[in-house]
Amino acid sequence: MKLTLPAQTILLPSPVLIIGTYSPDGKPNIMNAAWGGIASSKPPCISVSLREATLSYHNIKQTEAFTVNIPSEKFLKEADYVGIVSGREHDKFSETGLTAEKSKLVNAPIVKEFPYALECKLIEQIDLGLHTMFIGEILGMVADSEVLNTKQIPDIEKVRPMIFGSFGSMAYYNIGEKLGDAFSIGKEIQQV
Amino acid sequence: MKLTLPAQTILLPSPVLIIGTYSPDGKPNIMNAAWGGIASSKPPCISVSLREATLSYHNIKQTEAFTVNIPSEKFLKEADYVGIVSGREHDKFSETGLTAEKSKLVNAPIVKEFPYALECKLIEQIDLGLHTMFIGEILGMVADSEVLNTKQIPDIEKVRPMIFGSFGSMAYYNIGEKLGDAFSIGKEIQQV
Repeated sequence: MKLTLPAQTILLPSPVLIIGTYSPDGKPNIMNAAWGGIASSKPPCISVSLREATLSYHNIKQTEAFTVNIPSEKFLKEADYVGIVSGREHDKFSETGLTAEKSKLVNAPIVKEFPYALECKLIEQIDLGLHTMFIGEILGMVADSEVLNTKQIPDIEKVRPMIFGSFGSMAYYNIGEKLGDAFSIGKEIQQV
Repeated sequence: MKLTLPAQTILLPSPVLIIGTYSPDGKPNIMNAAWGGIASSKPPCISVSLREATLSYHNIKQTEAFTVNIPSEKFLKEADYVGIVSGREHDKFSETGLTAEKSKLVNAPIVKEFPYALECKLIEQIDLGLHTMFIGEILGMVADSEVLNTKQIPDIEKVRPMIFGSFGSMAYYNIGEKLGDAFSIGKEIQQV
């Protein structure tokens, strides 16, 4: 039975984005954000939406840079932790044992232990209400060689990223089985 | 070994968003988009980025409305198919056997067979280059009662959405195992 329901911000799957920023005095911070996605192919852009209450919001406003770090599933606890506490009271890198390495392209830290990171320069900010959407142009990427395919692209089966199940389950999941090839399996319908 | 690589639009996981629109003469269309995400909690907003080459881009410009339909994994072929062909030459609803039902809130069609859909009114459009980001305010949601939890929120374990593995694998995946509770499992670090 179809039900008509109030508006909900439920997107399945939602990603687990670990946003890396520096404060103006150079202290690195990371936070866990689920509101974001790729925004454009050319130029390559990604968006992430943050509340003004977060330290990361102010860091991005001031440095005009951020990284999007993708944790593999083995960093479950670390990824969740950096979404629970604030960088104002906690040094999240030292508390999680993660290592901040400065991006060579933008003024933002990369999480060394995570499989890959996108290095972003702020190009747009849109105040939508509780959240401000920050759009970053992706200037480069840093990745572990072990997670790349033969074309030097991160392979989801090697990255083993987490999925956020959003408010319906309030839990993280891993990637399951391969279902089929994109831009391919659908052709079976076309041929009917 | 860490490698420094060119910019890539690789976000893992990426969602499988089936965007529903009407042309000005009322013909329903659906397309498969991976570039998008939740943009704001209050007001509830979602973004989707489309190329000007798509029919859906022009439909949204004219109707100022769209739906975001989430397919369950059993609609693998249908979801892929509507990303391969254009609504200019194909009636994608009839060819896939899917049913268009008009949203009661916005001028856009809902895919009846899919577990749930977000009904969106266009509030912002940002030209970024090859893609234009359309930000929609989510006015309501339509969902199958079977995919809801006790709070009337779609549960990822019941929805069984697909994941797009992006350019590294060019394949779709399903949801794997539950890893832990969000805003909870990370507290084990805090207590160390």
